[in-house]
Amino acid sequence: MSRGRREDVVNVGSFAFERGGELDLDVAYAAYGDPTDPTVLVCHALTGSQYVAGPAPEGVSGQAAGWWDALVGPGKPIDTRAYHVVCANVPGSCYGTTGPVSEGPDGDPYGPDFPAVTVGDWTRSQARLLDALGVDTLYAVVGGSVGGMNVIDWAKRYPERVERIAAIATSPRLDAQCLGLNTAARRAITSDANYGDGDYYGGPEPDEGLAVARRIGHVMYLSKASMTDRFDRRVAERRADDHDDPTAEGFPYRDVASYLDYNAERFTERFDANSYLYLLRALDEYDLAADYPSDAAALADYEGDALVLSFTGDWHFPPEGGEVIADAFEAGPGAAVHRVIESDYGHDAFLVEPDRVGPPVRTLLERGASAVTTEADQNATPDYPRVCTGLLPDA
Amino acid sequence: MSRGRREDVVNVGSFAFERGGELDLDVAYAAYGDPTDPTVLVCHALTGSQYVAGPAPEGVSGQAAGWWDALVGPGKPIDTRAYHVVCANVPGSCYGTTGPVSEGPDGDPYGPDFPAVTVGDWTRSQARLLDALGVDTLYAVVGGSVGGMNVIDWAKRYPERVERIAAIATSPRLDAQCLGLNTAARRAITSDANYGDGDYYGGPEPDEGLAVARRIGHVMYLSKASMTDRFDRRVAERRADDHDDPTAEGFPYRDVASYLDYNAERFTERFDANSYLYLLRALDEYDLAADYPSDAAALADYEGDALVLSFTGDWHFPPEGGEVIADAFEAGPGAAVHRVIESDYGHDAFLVEPDRVGPPVRTLLERGASAVTTEADQNATPDYPRVCTGLLPDA
Repeated sequence: MSRGRREDVVNVGSFAFERGGELDLDVAYAAYGDPTDPTVLVCHALTGSQYVAGPAPEGVSGQAAGWWDALVGPGKPIDTRAYHVVCANVPGSCYGTTGPVSEGPDGDPYGPDFPAVTVGDWTRSQARLLDALGVDTLYAVVGGSVGGMNVIDWAKRYPERVERIAAIATSPRLDAQCLGLNTAARRAITSDANYGDGDYYGGPEPDEGLAVARRIGHVMYLSKASMTDRFDRRVAERRADDHDDPTAEGFPYRDVASYLDYNAERFTERFDANSYLYLLRALDEYDLAADYPSDAAALADYEGDALVLSFTGDWHFPPEGGEVIADAFEAGPGAAVHRVIESDYGHDAFLVEPDRVGPPVRTLLERGASAVTTEADQNATPDYPRVCTGLLPDA
Repeated sequence: MSRGRREDVVNVGSFAFERGGELDLDVAYAAYGDPTDPTVLVCHALTGSQYVAGPAPEGVSGQAAGWWDALVGPGKPIDTRAYHVVCANVPGSCYGTTGPVSEGPDGDPYGPDFPAVTVGDWTRSQARLLDALGVDTLYAVVGGSVGGMNVIDWAKRYPERVERIAAIATSPRLDAQCLGLNTAARRAITSDANYGDGDYYGGPEPDEGLAVARRIGHVMYLSKASMTDRFDRRVAERRADDHDDPTAEGFPYRDVASYLDYNAERFTERFDANSYLYLLRALDEYDLAADYPSDAAALADYEGDALVLSFTGDWHFPPEGGEVIADAFEAGPGAAVHRVIESDYGHDAFLVEPDRVGPPVRTLLERGASAVTTEADQNATPDYPRVCTGLLPDA
């Protein structure tokens, strides 16, 4: 209960997945602040968890532990003295909500028998959780990356339940380049000899494949500029004892390799390979316009405020995608603003630049999207000159 | 002998590698045109071969077979009626020059006992070949990608033997982002259970790991824009029968995945995993300024002409790198020009845009770098607005 966090697992009963399959679903969540205050739902990113702020339980580390600690808490932009903050682990993940590692009806982990999961399933599972918690209307839904897709999916799917949203470093749908890199990442996992047919639980796990996938992901989350600033071509201090590459002899172990190796290895300790496959699929598959003639049509019933934040150095979820989302919201009845934040940090900026993310989110919550617009007019970059227009569609 | 190609393997005797190790080196090459004409050396890219033009022998396919057929031949920009064109397979590769697949002194393939290979070793092996062929001075050295590093290494290492160079879609050294992706690619190979200690010859080969590595490489060679144009989020016609991903059920097999899978599989039929590891190391390790105080100092003795070509959509070897190379040449006594070509094709533009690569190369050969400068002033994009300045260092 440190810093006022409560956590629990709620069984929301039988849950039918969008692409087929049905199971008895547990939803694990963390909550902060006074439950009688207006509720802000926070949506976590691909490998995040419900532990959005404060310390997390043992085994929950890296970007799953207190990943928005600078944004959520007493006096912080998402102020737990004013709001009841809820964050739920998504179906398919491995932090307490039912997923491939969970015990199925036969007593073994579901593994690859787990149903296909979509972002829409995440949204629906959160709605079921909130029903169980007695929360009808959300004061706000906030999240970044694929969590931002989850956010806009709320406005699309339950427009009447949401008053304002902040969709950060996200996209209406992934482009072919990201789909391609995610394909390579999935193949790295499924071609690991330990992956086999996906039922690897109890035996050696496909950690090497998962680590390769994570290295690919990690490069996607950083920008060229930030990687040059941080690593350039410097040689690492630690030795690459743990990577048996006989062709490495005669060559330096570089900082960038050391960083990617280290983080990939740590990642395999905290995340499940099947969960990674499932959630990556949900990310790849998300399309705001799905089942509608257009993005705007998908959001036409949403009357709340919308804040879209993008980062200039983000080549994974670039500002052009944010603009498409903002345009879709703007076509509807609510107030919408797209704020492009100058940052070299790449996609990771939504996590590592809280000083730039926090103020507009605070303004949205306290005074609405229009107030952010006014501030944006005063402070924001008028255009986004640092973004990579040449590498983007229709630019 | 179709279209006048001659091919041969020359034993250049004992060869000491830069990073240690020595062996009896065979250099396989192809030659086109009249040997009494001025010689143009063409340097191939990472997985290319000596078969720069025309049909290649069986087993040499994809980008290893006739990869610059549009540039090299009678009447073409590198006109085999005027020049004697030589292209040699580099040490460490697998198209006839000694490499990991070659038989070592014990009668088995060298495998991971092959010495560490550098771009400098490639240059030195080519010099030894040319000595054997009786070619002292090169009318020109031309190549793209890591072959372009090979080209500038010629100007650095043997400035007195080279009269003009064309370095295309290349870089003075890779940046951290590319080093990071290449690290992920290498780990995919070495973590394949079939890779083992690298002595996999005669048993099952690490094709799955090599295929993952190639998918990563393939995305690096394309641009975001070209991938969107070509694939977007379209669903593939063929089925993904060959990829056992149990978590794929319920999701479409997309064009981009189909393309990457297909090409990666074909690639494993024509290339050796150890060769890929060795050549990727050479690429990562190349640094124009190595052993010199600066890039300009490395090229200070080169008095010939230099043409540097870059492509706006190339995020792997971006135009900024070409500019650094051109600046280094310009600081020396010879004429140098950097021409930035508008292209959405990404790094692959050097292969797939012969109509844009050919004319400046022809001009360089016929009239020198200064003549390209004049044309560039008339035709080229004054700045390179489509390049991704925000994602690049010091932009």
